[in-house]
Amino acid sequence: MPGSVAVQATVERLDQTRTFLVGVAPAGEVIQGVGTGRYLHAGPPLEPGEVPAPMRGALAAILVFEGRCATVEDAYDLLDSGALELGSANEAGAVGAVAGIVSPSMPVVVVESENGRRAFSPLNEGLGRVIRFGATDDAAITRLRWMRDELAPTLAAAIGHTEPVELTAMQAEGLRRGDECHNRNVASSAALICRLAAAISERAASTSAAARVLTAATENPHFFLPFSMASAKVVALAAHGVPGSPVVTTMSSNGVRFGIRVSGCGDTWFTAPAPVGEPKLFDGFVQADAHPAMGDSFITECIGLGACAFNAAPAISSFLGTSPAQGRVVVDLMGRLTAGRSSRFLVPYDDYAGTPIGIDVTRVAQEGIGPYANNGVAHREAGRGQVGAALTQLPLEPFVAAARALAEREQAAGAGSR
Amino acid sequence: MPGSVAVQATVERLDQTRTFLVGVAPAGEVIQGVGTGRYLHAGPPLEPGEVPAPMRGALAAILVFEGRCATVEDAYDLLDSGALELGSANEAGAVGAVAGIVSPSMPVVVVESENGRRAFSPLNEGLGRVIRFGATDDAAITRLRWMRDELAPTLAAAIGHTEPVELTAMQAEGLRRGDECHNRNVASSAALICRLAAAISERAASTSAAARVLTAATENPHFFLPFSMASAKVVALAAHGVPGSPVVTTMSSNGVRFGIRVSGCGDTWFTAPAPVGEPKLFDGFVQADAHPAMGDSFITECIGLGACAFNAAPAISSFLGTSPAQGRVVVDLMGRLTAGRSSRFLVPYDDYAGTPIGIDVTRVAQEGIGPYANNGVAHREAGRGQVGAALTQLPLEPFVAAARALAEREQAAGAGSR
Repeated sequence: MPGSVAVQATVERLDQTRTFLVGVAPAGEVIQGVGTGRYLHAGPPLEPGEVPAPMRGALAAILVFEGRCATVEDAYDLLDSGALELGSANEAGAVGAVAGIVSPSMPVVVVESENGRRAFSPLNEGLGRVIRFGATDDAAITRLRWMRDELAPTLAAAIGHTEPVELTAMQAEGLRRGDECHNRNVASSAALICRLAAAISERAASTSAAARVLTAATENPHFFLPFSMASAKVVALAAHGVPGSPVVTTMSSNGVRFGIRVSGCGDTWFTAPAPVGEPKLFDGFVQADAHPAMGDSFITECIGLGACAFNAAPAISSFLGTSPAQGRVVVDLMGRLTAGRSSRFLVPYDDYAGTPIGIDVTRVAQEGIGPYANNGVAHREAGRGQVGAALTQLPLEPFVAAARALAEREQAAGAGSR
Repeated sequence: MPGSVAVQATVERLDQTRTFLVGVAPAGEVIQGVGTGRYLHAGPPLEPGEVPAPMRGALAAILVFEGRCATVEDAYDLLDSGALELGSANEAGAVGAVAGIVSPSMPVVVVESENGRRAFSPLNEGLGRVIRFGATDDAAITRLRWMRDELAPTLAAAIGHTEPVELTAMQAEGLRRGDECHNRNVASSAALICRLAAAISERAASTSAAARVLTAATENPHFFLPFSMASAKVVALAAHGVPGSPVVTTMSSNGVRFGIRVSGCGDTWFTAPAPVGEPKLFDGFVQADAHPAMGDSFITECIGLGACAFNAAPAISSFLGTSPAQGRVVVDLMGRLTAGRSSRFLVPYDDYAGTPIGIDVTRVAQEGIGPYANNGVAHREAGRGQVGAALTQLPLEPFVAAARALAEREQAAGAGSR
């Protein structure tokens, strides 16, 4: 496929694929490759022994949550024994925030496109000392058990008794409500809860269960995040596999390596050391506490949200330590690095301009500057949790390497067809 | 009090008064001057015989709702007999959207300041063929009965079992979520419902009642409007009565006359014929269908919301037929007509500038241009309902008359003190 046609086809899929909320279910029941002996993690695949400290913390807490180990210490021993196999969540159609651990009992959001393509993301635990940021506290484990035993089944029942929720439409409305649907999700969280509230009150096991679910959901400003991420993953999957296309369909980080996959480059990961960025730290933390980037949530940037929609969400600046003016600069840059404009993700504050979509490795290589994304930042040590959030410039190298690989691939294909 | 000191004192009260949601109750139990023989209406006081057609429709529907008349026709006869006394809602501490009828059983939102000053506004029925826009349909009356019998008691119980809700803080957050808290309330409605949802599910008479209440509340994009209006009225009341102050503390319209009251001018209304504006009409209506402005919701403009916060809510343009650029022009104009800037109502899209607060009749008279407000528009005939919405330039005359009256008052006071 000639380059421009391939780009156009990819951008069209990014722009047109609609996603719907299907349910919430235990990961082991819906994701292939998750089982008692195999968990998933965020980012490109990790070699045994590479697992970074906060991800080890998350894994240990989840081994206790799953009942495989009695204590966190036992869990560390099990991890060291190599008895647990790990795989990249992205390769299984899943996306997890920060450590992004997916285990069989972990409740995940299930999202589907009109043609039945599915993706998954673990329900969000809230902010602070939570497992995805490496915390191992009893309170965090107890909370995840409650999410599995009451929150998830109640949400599943409510979703089953609610008119279909189009998540891509909610993301578009989110931009009209000051969210960028990656690190600012307050208005979208409220909107989604409102869509489900009547069914939650009707379908919960008891009145008090309904109240607990509604309290937990409404108190979590990131309730919408896994819904947004799984929606983005479905859209990105639809855009993957266009021959010759230089458009990025995955960006994620495992705390060691940041990696991308490209529509026209098959299953190959292009990686570089994970960036640290300059996070805005919570009170009591210093820059040295910050772990290099971890998580699959950059998938939202792949479909035109997050940093691509930064000017829709100026109020995020208080969380990320940026300014509204900086937000506009970031979006201008993303515009130079992308192949098209969204026809549905519109920024009213920018006179309804569509957000930049389709990060194009050829353009990134030509401009010589890495795209931005925004992310939560974990403590460098296991067991500590979140220390801040950042607007992070992603490393250039993977994009340059992908552009080169794509050119070689096309050259080889051209030679083959002669 | 010297003019500049009076202005500063008034602006401070507009800027500092915090409001809290106290409850939802039948108007007859909480508002003085509402009874079986006396209802309230929007705008300055009306003479008998002046009541405009849509307000007559609303009154007739409400007489049926109250059980005083069996049919709408009987109700028109009762109105013609003069047996029902009418009063201005604003003079009783209440503010009602459009026709703004307040009757004894009408459920009203109750809002209070820290020092116990209270204001009231009828719960919102939704959009379209609703009573406040003059509709008299059985469906609209049945709906209002349901609001009285199930929605209002459930909300009252939920509010009583929820941590205090600061409405001025929700209005400030609304601006960060793309609302201006007058004609765009979608995000604030969702936020308020989320605050109450757990208590609604726990305190409703039954699971199905909770589901009905949550469904009605979440399907109404203007659910928050009466909460916003009553909050604004409390703030404006706190700013009223500062000797010598030229700051507007009431703007409202009864479909015949638009009127204002001014902090330093006591109970005097300054009026002019109600403006029609150039509404964006719903499909199937023409300009000639539009009734001149009606309603007390301009109270939100008095405290720095609505048209004063238009640039916070660019997505409102699709509803009002305006553009984001026009929104900025409107706010610039309001800045020229006001005495100060809000320290809490900040517009992130405008680098966190405070909204203009304290419409100053002296400045309006000097500039020679009326302030803007935005409003819903009723059909000219009774029984028809809403036909559209508008950004409306308010008539200049009342502001000029008030400026003159204030000058005369000050002169007289000065003469008296010599």
